[in-house]
Amino acid sequence: MTHIDGFNYIGTVVCKSGEARFQAVNPQTGQALPTEFFSATLEETDLAMTKAQKAFLQLKKILPAQKARFLEEIAHQIEALGEPLIERAHQETALPTGRLIGERGRTCNQLRMFANLVREGSWVEANIDTAQPERQPLPKPDIRKILVPIGPVVVFGASNFPLAFSTAGGDTASALAAGNPVVVKAHNAHPGTAELVAKAILKAVEICEMPEGTFSMVHDSGYTVGKLLVTHPLTKAVAFTGSLAGGKALFDLANQRPEPIPVFAEMGSINPVFLLEEALAKRAETMGQQYAQSVTLGTGQFCTNPGLLIGVKGAHLNTFIASFSQTLHDIAPSSMLTPQIQKNYQAHLEKALHQNGIDVIASASGTSNPQKSEAQPVIASTEAKVFLNNPTLHEEVFGPYTLLIQCNDTTEMQQVADALQGQLTVTVMAEAEELGETQQTLVTTLEEKTGRLIFNGVPTGVEVCPSMHHGGPYPATTDSRFTSVGTSAIKRFARPLSFQNTPEAILPEALRNQNTQDIWRLVNGEWSKENI
Amino acid sequence: MTHIDGFNYIGTVVCKSGEARFQAVNPQTGQALPTEFFSATLEETDLAMTKAQKAFLQLKKILPAQKARFLEEIAHQIEALGEPLIERAHQETALPTGRLIGERGRTCNQLRMFANLVREGSWVEANIDTAQPERQPLPKPDIRKILVPIGPVVVFGASNFPLAFSTAGGDTASALAAGNPVVVKAHNAHPGTAELVAKAILKAVEICEMPEGTFSMVHDSGYTVGKLLVTHPLTKAVAFTGSLAGGKALFDLANQRPEPIPVFAEMGSINPVFLLEEALAKRAETMGQQYAQSVTLGTGQFCTNPGLLIGVKGAHLNTFIASFSQTLHDIAPSSMLTPQIQKNYQAHLEKALHQNGIDVIASASGTSNPQKSEAQPVIASTEAKVFLNNPTLHEEVFGPYTLLIQCNDTTEMQQVADALQGQLTVTVMAEAEELGETQQTLVTTLEEKTGRLIFNGVPTGVEVCPSMHHGGPYPATTDSRFTSVGTSAIKRFARPLSFQNTPEAILPEALRNQNTQDIWRLVNGEWSKENI
Repeated sequence: MTHIDGFNYIGTVVCKSGEARFQAVNPQTGQALPTEFFSATLEETDLAMTKAQKAFLQLKKILPAQKARFLEEIAHQIEALGEPLIERAHQETALPTGRLIGERGRTCNQLRMFANLVREGSWVEANIDTAQPERQPLPKPDIRKILVPIGPVVVFGASNFPLAFSTAGGDTASALAAGNPVVVKAHNAHPGTAELVAKAILKAVEICEMPEGTFSMVHDSGYTVGKLLVTHPLTKAVAFTGSLAGGKALFDLANQRPEPIPVFAEMGSINPVFLLEEALAKRAETMGQQYAQSVTLGTGQFCTNPGLLIGVKGAHLNTFIASFSQTLHDIAPSSMLTPQIQKNYQAHLEKALHQNGIDVIASASGTSNPQKSEAQPVIASTEAKVFLNNPTLHEEVFGPYTLLIQCNDTTEMQQVADALQGQLTVTVMAEAEELGETQQTLVTTLEEKTGRLIFNGVPTGVEVCPSMHHGGPYPATTDSRFTSVGTSAIKRFARPLSFQNTPEAILPEALRNQNTQDIWRLVNGEWSKENI
Repeated sequence: MTHIDGFNYIGTVVCKSGEARFQAVNPQTGQALPTEFFSATLEETDLAMTKAQKAFLQLKKILPAQKARFLEEIAHQIEALGEPLIERAHQETALPTGRLIGERGRTCNQLRMFANLVREGSWVEANIDTAQPERQPLPKPDIRKILVPIGPVVVFGASNFPLAFSTAGGDTASALAAGNPVVVKAHNAHPGTAELVAKAILKAVEICEMPEGTFSMVHDSGYTVGKLLVTHPLTKAVAFTGSLAGGKALFDLANQRPEPIPVFAEMGSINPVFLLEEALAKRAETMGQQYAQSVTLGTGQFCTNPGLLIGVKGAHLNTFIASFSQTLHDIAPSSMLTPQIQKNYQAHLEKALHQNGIDVIASASGTSNPQKSEAQPVIASTEAKVFLNNPTLHEEVFGPYTLLIQCNDTTEMQQVADALQGQLTVTVMAEAEELGETQQTLVTTLEEKTGRLIFNGVPTGVEVCPSMHHGGPYPATTDSRFTSVGTSAIKRFARPLSFQNTPEAILPEALRNQNTQDIWRLVNGEWSKENI
């Protein structure tokens, strides 16, 4: 099962009829890795969606317990892939094996978390209002509402999380958990990793007797297959993690369909960090170290990488700068995910640094080697006025780079806050006593700008739990009302359906009088686990 | 307060600087009603949004109890308008006063329902995961999540519900309940009704000391002001009830903004009704009467009007036809909402009836008078094959018209089901015994097509309650995951926000350790009302 053959896996059918082929590249060597991958053809893409739709109708009959077992079996099969998965992922992404082992753990935990959610069952938001036949002037009918799966979901693998946001990542796990079939467009930077994981999923499909077509995976080195999937009439939703340009293109494509469909695109952000006065006074040095580490963690390739630091000029900010610079100085340049991502980093970095009024404060002392796709960690500095007047500086530079805005006073700091676009995260480094009335306006402003507000921490590291919101106002995502991390991610792929005066036999089990699944239900306005 | 002056009401400012004016028309006479209304100018529209944004930041500090009192006060002030409101609405819409009194009751009930929802407080989905500082390999931070208001909401008044889906209708009530300011674009068919209700809302703003700009209402006889509102950078969401063309235009406009925003457009549907064999055998005559009434209720101007009936040919279907036709025969033609709507009905009806293979079965015996905007109730008939091959027949004809599809067998009936677009409602008339295995495929198919599945009833009449889903797959709405009726409608205008390691003093009250609001919260994965 750990052999990589480069085929498209469409339900139980192995497809390799296309003429276009491509190879993965080891970013650390610039060399192509052995296997040739077949880009899917139009027919193969269509087959994946047709099978998905067929599976969708069958999936509706499958009970929560079986769905939960299926998700757990996927986790088990991924673990069973063992060392070869980590090795291949390392070759394709240059991510350290330790990190990849952690990411595999997270991927399997996510699958098991959704298994538990599905097994427990209350996520369907069962809602029952019983009839009042005697009500005047009109009788009240019996109405019962439940979340039902939305239909075939297309998931795009993400370059920066080859496991946790790719083939069997959070998007796939949550879409399957909701009862939808999934077609994955594998990321062309790690097609071998994708294939291994796809085979693990398909093994689980077989073992758990899930309908054929519940899962498919297709390859493409370019954009053709992705476009075909998003515009396919049977596709009902799309999940994507990547760049603003990529996510926005899919969003526009989906909205221009005869039947528009939702695109949940998480498109990154610059994740501003506000360094307040008292915090700097007390712990500027520690904060400098902490943030130099956060900016360069994983070669700066996290969606929540802190790309903007904001503080008021002064001795304490200087201490922060010195500490940050010193830590950065000692960080060794490391390889990015792909040679192209390294090139993009270089280009965006140069563009950012060539803007008027931008000064490089510090850089890692080691020289990065572009042949190894290595990125040079850099911190630059500017004045608030420069930032406020230059939209280019509001754009993400994907990689180990951050821009420090040195404000003249807190008024300027507030102006920077006002000028921010939507963000995945905003962080405030502050002492409790300085968060009173004086900073209330700042905090209120920041709440409007973000999906997650962090105090005295770093934005890198996204906890997977029910209270996590990994999303945020545009351009951080295309839909601020939904998260791609945590149990609530399942809500993206379900829609409410009301049943009026419906015979028990027709009702979904969760809506019947007997609460056999022992789930929480809103019954005549009260939360309850009782039978009707 | 019941004088109508024709001005735009922008917060506390009365605006009438525009040159363009228009008058409402009494559809029953074709005559213009006295007052001239001022279309809002670009500056006035901008002022409304600027005031809304300013109010938005202040609204965040207002406690649930005050918001609830505000919603109740709006209901009270609408009731206090008394007879003149009903009279004006009747003049502007030709809806019978009995219906309008009922609609006013529904409008006030909705406001009070949202007041109760806000006062109870659990709708914010408070979600708390406490810290685990000792966790290995990484400490778990404290994360708490809550729904927060999305920002200024633009609401378009609906022609067919001058009270319940207009100025203080479900969209306005749910947007205000979530904590958002609202700018209403009054429907130009009932500007006087809109003004009266707007003044009632503004009176409530004053009495409850809500921020200035919490509510504004602007007029326009055309589309300019609506476009300005939807494209205004401060607008964060749009609610609309009306035609597919209108809703889709707003949806496209909103998606083409530099910052795309959600448009919740409920765009009607043809609400198919499946007449199964046994039900016809037992109660064809009653069903015929029932549906002739439902098709013509409110001159066929409900979003849930049954525009498509599907049955298998035979004696029982003939009985249904005879009964329907006889009932229809005796229904007097009545006035539509506007002369233009009547013209559109006439045009769409003629287009539908001129398609190949369409036969008129019956019509009301009285002659409709176009001078009084009266619509002729009509039922036509066709074969399944004709319907399947002609997309025009899948389009809504807004008015008292329905098309009966006479299938040769249940296979054809299934084909019709398969071919349906997204619907607000689908109805199945069936006896319990015929809903077993044989019809399982049909029911499964229909579930995919609709937001509400009704058994043995009529789709007209939308109960306002937590379990109601008034929505459905495109083209019924632009977002199948949200409802415009019932308590869940509030979810359209809120988004999740996570707080990480946040000091108690900064946290929203609902997320603090002490559960002072006594709301349901998901704490470390368990629903609870306990303190932390």
